Amino acid sequence: MMEEDNFSPEERAAIYRCIRERRDVRRNFLPDPVPPDVLARVLAAGHAAPSVGFLQPWNFIVIRESATKEALHAAFTRANAEAAAMFEGERAELYRSLKLEGLREAPLLLCVTCERERAGPVVLGRTHQSEMDIYSTVCAVENIWLAARAENLGVGWVSILALADLHRILAIPDPIVPIALLCMGYVDHFAHKPDLERTGWRKRLALDDLVFEERFGEREKTPVSG
Amino acid sequence: MMEEDNFSPEERAAIYRCIRERRDVRRNFLPDPVPPDVLARVLAAGHAAPSVGFLQPWNFIVIRESATKEALHAAFTRANAEAAAMFEGERAELYRSLKLEGLREAPLLLCVTCERERAGPVVLGRTHQSEMDIYSTVCAVENIWLAARAENLGVGWVSILALADLHRILAIPDPIVPIALLCMGYVDHFAHKPDLERTGWRKRLALDDLVFEERFGEREKTPVSG
Repeated sequence: MMEEDNFSPEERAAIYRCIRERRDVRRNFLPDPVPPDVLARVLAAGHAAPSVGFLQPWNFIVIRESATKEALHAAFTRANAEAAAMFEGERAELYRSLKLEGLREAPLLLCVTCERERAGPVVLGRTHQSEMDIYSTVCAVENIWLAARAENLGVGWVSILALADLHRILAIPDPIVPIALLCMGYVDHFAHKPDLERTGWRKRLALDDLVFEERFGEREKTPVSG
Repeated sequence: MMEEDNFSPEERAAIYRCIRERRDVRRNFLPDPVPPDVLARVLAAGHAAPSVGFLQPWNFIVIRESATKEALHAAFTRANAEAAAMFEGERAELYRSLKLEGLREAPLLLCVTCERERAGPVVLGRTHQSEMDIYSTVCAVENIWLAARAENLGVGWVSILALADLHRILAIPDPIVPIALLCMGYVDHFAHKPDLERTGWRKRLALDDLVFEERFGEREKTPVSG
């Protein structure tokens, strides 16, 4: 290993801190705009994601107009009413109490899409696992999310919308796949825990229970946390 | 924003460096084992990924035995012969010259899977975009990749295998979806550019060409790089 390739302990700590303190943010957005140079760095982080066959299949739609945000919010509201009806009793009550989007409050929305035919039908690395280009685009979303956290920007992934509404409102042609709609902006604080953990929707699983050795279902002899 | 929530310029630079210098590594692995505490940190980074409905749908299979690596390599070899036949002329020649896996050389392989039914059929946030749990798992893969880079570990995503072979070799039950097979280990150096860029397989696209404003296909008035 060449010395200059190494990350220092301080750099490593910063990266782990960012991964640990990234949150899915749907509230507490401040109205301050995201400066163009900050947005450019965050988008460049997305563009630096790994991609199958170096396809770089992504596009980034930056949304700032109120009319677009309102249309997306209306689509969310329709979908969320359908979603709420799928839960029962106390779960339905808790569901309805959750804030699951920040589409109107966030100063900026970002839609990340995947163009599957960007290099024709045959793509190196996609020949046997056909979803690899979609996965590449998701890696770009996670890079954006982490870069945004490093810029002290909150990001929330809003998935409670029909894909047909995303296509229509954002004029996304049919062969292009919308992957993520993100709300983004400065926030007054970052929560210490995920909202769904804090509100008791679901518990944090123990990492040791999720790790297998050699084959699915076979436990580590020594817990990873040991 | 509370001051302690902020990332310092030095921390931010470390995060961008990690995103920029992450590489898809399939060669130059050293035989040194990955220490258990390092692996535990890398897996914890995966487990810290965002997940739809806080589902945490992932499992991590850690593979160290030669017999398993050889079986995976044989599955790669079969798939790669089929893949190579899909390209023609100079592309086929270039394809055959590429090193597309490091399954036998890497001291450790990691398979990341997605259990879609971990919380039953109805999942908050998956009601209208059914692939969200898969996307969550891909976010875990990208976290692992970045954490590994911060630990000076190379990671390569090997996708040229039939999913049926992954199910069989790693005893992954049918309802569980294999998402990524990663080879991981210390390396003698990290390449400055992606292999597929360096070898001329595909060019790096210009970020400005990938960014739209408000709607798909509408250009930014000011380039993001400006």
